[in-house]
Amino acid sequence: MTVSSGLSEEMKPEIVSLHPLGTAAAPEPELLCIFGTGDLGRSLGLRLLQSGYRVVYGSRRPHSCGPLPQGAQVMSHAAAAQSVSLIFICVHREHYEFLETMALHLEGKVLVDLSNNLKKDIYPEANAAYLQRLVPGAAVVKGLNTLSAWALQNGLLAGKQVYLCGNSAEAKQAVAEMATKLGLTVLDRGSLSAARELEDFPLQLFPEWRLPLRVAVGLTAFFFFYLLIRDVIYAYVEQGKDISFRIMVSLANKVFPIVSLIMLSLCYLPGVIAAFLQLYRGTKYRRFPDWLDCWMLCRKQMGLTALGFAFLHAIYTFIIPIRYAVRHKLISRVVDEMKNNKTTPFYFDNTEAWGTDSFYVLGILGFFLYVLLGLTSLPSVGGSLSWREFSFIQSKLGHLTLFICTAHGYIYGWNKFLRPSTYKWYTPPGYMLCLIVPSVVLVLKLLLLLPCVDRTLTRIRQGWERTQPMGEMGESKATNL
Amino acid sequence: MTVSSGLSEEMKPEIVSLHPLGTAAAPEPELLCIFGTGDLGRSLGLRLLQSGYRVVYGSRRPHSCGPLPQGAQVMSHAAAAQSVSLIFICVHREHYEFLETMALHLEGKVLVDLSNNLKKDIYPEANAAYLQRLVPGAAVVKGLNTLSAWALQNGLLAGKQVYLCGNSAEAKQAVAEMATKLGLTVLDRGSLSAARELEDFPLQLFPEWRLPLRVAVGLTAFFFFYLLIRDVIYAYVEQGKDISFRIMVSLANKVFPIVSLIMLSLCYLPGVIAAFLQLYRGTKYRRFPDWLDCWMLCRKQMGLTALGFAFLHAIYTFIIPIRYAVRHKLISRVVDEMKNNKTTPFYFDNTEAWGTDSFYVLGILGFFLYVLLGLTSLPSVGGSLSWREFSFIQSKLGHLTLFICTAHGYIYGWNKFLRPSTYKWYTPPGYMLCLIVPSVVLVLKLLLLLPCVDRTLTRIRQGWERTQPMGEMGESKATNL
Amino acid sequence: MTVSSGLSEEMKPEIVSLHPLGTAAAPEPELLCIFGTGDLGRSLGLRLLQSGYRVVYGSRRPHSCGPLPQGAQVMSHAAAAQSVSLIFICVHREHYEFLETMALHLEGKVLVDLSNNLKKDIYPEANAAYLQRLVPGAAVVKGLNTLSAWALQNGLLAGKQVYLCGNSAEAKQAVAEMATKLGLTVLDRGSLSAARELEDFPLQLFPEWRLPLRVAVGLTAFFFFYLLIRDVIYAYVEQGKDISFRIMVSLANKVFPIVSLIMLSLCYLPGVIAAFLQLYRGTKYRRFPDWLDCWMLCRKQMGLTALGFAFLHAIYTFIIPIRYAVRHKLISRVVDEMKNNKTTPFYFDNTEAWGTDSFYVLGILGFFLYVLLGLTSLPSVGGSLSWREFSFIQSKLGHLTLFICTAHGYIYGWNKFLRPSTYKWYTPPGYMLCLIVPSVVLVLKLLLLLPCVDRTLTRIRQGWERTQPMGEMGESKATNL
Repeated sequence: MTVSSGLSEEMKPEIVSLHPLGTAAAPEPELLCIFGTGDLGRSLGLRLLQSGYRVVYGSRRPHSCGPLPQGAQVMSHAAAAQSVSLIFICVHREHYEFLETMALHLEGKVLVDLSNNLKKDIYPEANAAYLQRLVPGAAVVKGLNTLSAWALQNGLLAGKQVYLCGNSAEAKQAVAEMATKLGLTVLDRGSLSAARELEDFPLQLFPEWRLPLRVAVGLTAFFFFYLLIRDVIYAYVEQGKDISFRIMVSLANKVFPIVSLIMLSLCYLPGVIAAFLQLYRGTKYRRFPDWLDCWMLCRKQMGLTALGFAFLHAIYTFIIPIRYAVRHKLISRVVDEMKNNKTTPFYFDNTEAWGTDSFYVLGILGFFLYVLLGLTSLPSVGGSLSWREFSFIQSKLGHLTLFICTAHGYIYGWNKFLRPSTYKWYTPPGYMLCLIVPSVVLVLKLLLLLPCVDRTLTRIRQGWERTQPMGEMGESKATNL
Repeated sequence: MTVSSGLSEEMKPEIVSLHPLGTAAAPEPELLCIFGTGDLGRSLGLRLLQSGYRVVYGSRRPHSCGPLPQGAQVMSHAAAAQSVSLIFICVHREHYEFLETMALHLEGKVLVDLSNNLKKDIYPEANAAYLQRLVPGAAVVKGLNTLSAWALQNGLLAGKQVYLCGNSAEAKQAVAEMATKLGLTVLDRGSLSAARELEDFPLQLFPEWRLPLRVAVGLTAFFFFYLLIRDVIYAYVEQGKDISFRIMVSLANKVFPIVSLIMLSLCYLPGVIAAFLQLYRGTKYRRFPDWLDCWMLCRKQMGLTALGFAFLHAIYTFIIPIRYAVRHKLISRVVDEMKNNKTTPFYFDNTEAWGTDSFYVLGILGFFLYVLLGLTSLPSVGGSLSWREFSFIQSKLGHLTLFICTAHGYIYGWNKFLRPSTYKWYTPPGYMLCLIVPSVVLVLKLLLLLPCVDRTLTRIRQGWERTQPMGEMGESKATNL
Repeated sequence: MTVSSGLSEEMKPEIVSLHPLGTAAAPEPELLCIFGTGDLGRSLGLRLLQSGYRVVYGSRRPHSCGPLPQGAQVMSHAAAAQSVSLIFICVHREHYEFLETMALHLEGKVLVDLSNNLKKDIYPEANAAYLQRLVPGAAVVKGLNTLSAWALQNGLLAGKQVYLCGNSAEAKQAVAEMATKLGLTVLDRGSLSAARELEDFPLQLFPEWRLPLRVAVGLTAFFFFYLLIRDVIYAYVEQGKDISFRIMVSLANKVFPIVSLIMLSLCYLPGVIAAFLQLYRGTKYRRFPDWLDCWMLCRKQMGLTALGFAFLHAIYTFIIPIRYAVRHKLISRVVDEMKNNKTTPFYFDNTEAWGTDSFYVLGILGFFLYVLLGLTSLPSVGGSLSWREFSFIQSKLGHLTLFICTAHGYIYGWNKFLRPSTYKWYTPPGYMLCLIVPSVVLVLKLLLLLPCVDRTLTRIRQGWERTQPMGEMGESKATNL
């Protein structure tokens, strides 16, 4: 008890100095306790103080625990726990044992477990479950562990979503109120059995980017070797020329647009498949197969990966004229021109000029729309769009982008499709292969835009069913493609 | 009543399994009802469950309504409505009639109408007004209809602003509390008569972009035909040369920077006009004319459109050297040089080198600042700036950008202004026309920066009036230009 | 009292017309008062009305104060203050005197001071402190002054963080509740003595950008003059050639990548220094020196400045081939080639082709990663990443970027390091100087990645101490580098 009274004597002047004119009637701000004086503990305390709470730290070395936020008290764990009802555990799991020894002091308190591990699955049970087992009399709430010390220090909390779980609804309520006061948005994830899931959140490494990146790597590798054989090795074997230097830029600049276009079409393929599936089934109430769901969920990441490749393609194209090989070719060509001393005037091919310029213009417009699509997928931009605006951009503008980029590809090969020399070793060039998927997507999308098909699809998406069993009414808002 | 008791018997184990250790004293979470098991209903239910509510669905086919979020109950509409005070109507308006038949069950309940229509003005009255007419005994609240099923599922709600309207303040209060718990920010838009307005929100398609885009399309069309006549048709008529291939790139690359520069200056013109209007009137307390208000409200969109054109201009410029026509011209020139066998050494014009390089450098710096301005207009970036920082960027840096881009235009024509051959068919070239508006804006802005003018303007913006009637004090914070 | 009853008679019809069907039982929304009918007052009133409050304006000219939001009342200051408990002071500080005369009417009210000044330190005391002195009987709360009229009008408040300070906890609580209802996140900054700090917030002009920009300007100036002497002046003095036109593009395009690379390495240097400091000290519980703290806090701004220079370098590079000087050189070279009538065929240097292409490819990849890093530092993108994802991007990807950009620099000089002609006037070229810091950072980072060092460092960051005094447990979450 001496410790507790020591607390109030030490703390009060501090508080009063903060609110010198506070009337006696004003309720004293709530006192919260933090176990642990590390980065996280210090940052959390600072934020709590700024939000109007009083803070007391529990430490094993109350007198040598380094700098703490101004206005906070520090004392022994037991003393600090005495006078509060809510304790933040900002201690590594490896050091939880000491809590067992002071289980009596923690009886009936709410313990917020903010701990994370460095890797997944290194312990048999979640940190919070382990804590609950050590201190069965306390109400353990797992949560806020997705906040970093850095975000806490820099006030980057406003509107941020945090997760809570715990077995006591009351305890969760208390933590949720505190978190709301800190400007956080709280999501209740159920009982303490969800703690493992919450502890895995900060360890996630781009889970939704994995499929798109794997597809991108696979496609890049395939087309790289395909073009390596067709271009470099073919030239070496058949013509004895060493053009291996082309690998660095020319070859890469063929692979990137190919992968980009295929990835972009793979963005829009699942939507088309889903539409045909709904048309075939005559209802929207049956779930899509898992692979389709999975595919649809990573369309954004797929599109952004495609944009990355398009960006590389653009820059690779911009530096073409300053390359040594290109300059050399240009000079050689003039020199040849002169050496041969042709009498015919140097001929200007108007069709060639139109063709290449159209090719570049389509590429530029496609890239421009690509970048627009990318910008609207920024969380803050996308969030400020209405549903119709978002669907206009991502569906209408997206398909237009796909169309323009596909046309860019077709014009590239416009006069080469029927030339036999194009099919070296009987293989089609890369750009032909890459036009297959986009063309299929565009044709299917065109079919869906036919008035009769479109009308049926719209009705299905409003809840109409071909074999309407008992007249269940349709429910609102179609899934946006 | 049997239904209701059926509910509690079926629901409770579910709840208990979620909170196995919840003490009996803990208040049971509130039960909410959702009519409709479509995408929106399911997503909303999921989110409500995650935020700690209990959820019961009302469906006509309680036993075959597809997958629902784990932990939710489903029963008939009447049974579901029985035990709750708040019901979400996630049903298409076309199916509202059935609600009339169960008006008795809905007496005194709060009905949240989340419905949207596919088009504007297809019904004589707002969906929510229609619902209120069908169920006069219930308190209808229109709202949350700007949320998409997609945003609900993916937890993109934190801090998002939603609108409510309704005739009962109590009902609105209840819905607002629920929405706040979901992490939303609620704005009350008044009585149910505002429902139509709310229902039109999700159908908006870039209303504030229309004026800028129209201006951009108009300017583009005008300059395109102007330059087409001056460049391509002139060459064909007067010199008999077919240079129509220039339309694709050369012509476009003249139109884009022209439109971009004019749009950028149109961004800053209204601010200057407003300042002169305030100076002329001697007060800031009289409203601007509507056209000026309208113009000032779409400056951001105007600037972003200008940035889009500048971006296209930049890429069009980068690909110049890889164009067929440009390479051909380069080669032809060398060949000519050689054929003529000039004896004079190939002359390096130092002034030309300085001039073109300055031209490029100003273009690059202008584009760089343009991009900076664009970045700070991203909601998340702009939101993190202080008022002075934002005004520094958008006003100071904006005018600097305009100045640099205008200088870029002047240098382009530096040695051509006085050359008679520039004025084909007695028309000035496009870049001269496009320099008029920016020059006017810059001169007017310069006038405003004169110390005496600036001082008067600052005083006016702080509330001072030239003919101060009775000594009303100035009010704080000037409109930021 | 007549004024007060006049208020209720005038106000009520207004309110009723807004909520025509509101039941009598519903609590009437709270009435708030705003002194001042300027931009800020009007915008604030509009937002309060939209959030369900009733609003009354206090004005010296209640009958000629210009357009006010629909639904708001306006009356004399004294009358308006009569019936409310909370008054917003949206008046310039210069006009505060009149408040002293009506101190009696303001007794016991909460006054929210939203005022800002145009410059720092123009008054001896904070506006809010001055207000408190004028009206000692009222509870002055300073706050919300970071909101602009523009943000209020456009509903850009959701989740925004605002600061409050004041001596009365009750008054602050009332304001905080109101602000939360407006969608704002409130941070309590303590007593009224913090008012000055709050009033300085909107006047801040990129404080955290100052150091990076100064470093950038310093480096740019140094390398510009260094290269000016080595390139332009050297050529003029030693060879009598005037190549001053190179200043505009060639020289700048050498300075930009140099500054960019150095700034990027300066981003990662403090992290490495901090790690070695922790290793040397054997603990993470001692504070870093102030200069290191300061340096670490502006790493983001340093990186973005570096990205800006890299962006300029990229565009400068793209326009190289369309420069007059470059075209002239190309043509001259061909002409020379022909004039000399060499008999040796024009030689293609395979090594040169590989070298330059690798150089460009590394530059492109480096720039691509640079842009990725920049994108993830956007608040909305960075905020959606988990802690591990953010640290992966900023640490792993960041060091990879530094490595690639450094390699880009090394390849640039690959065959020039040992050539004596490189060292004009015995000075090393600029790119050699700029490779020093990045190389040092990479070598130090490599040392830190050695398993034994890495293990010790990880332990230290988990709280382990080499001379563990009494067994204090380590606290969670290491500072992210």
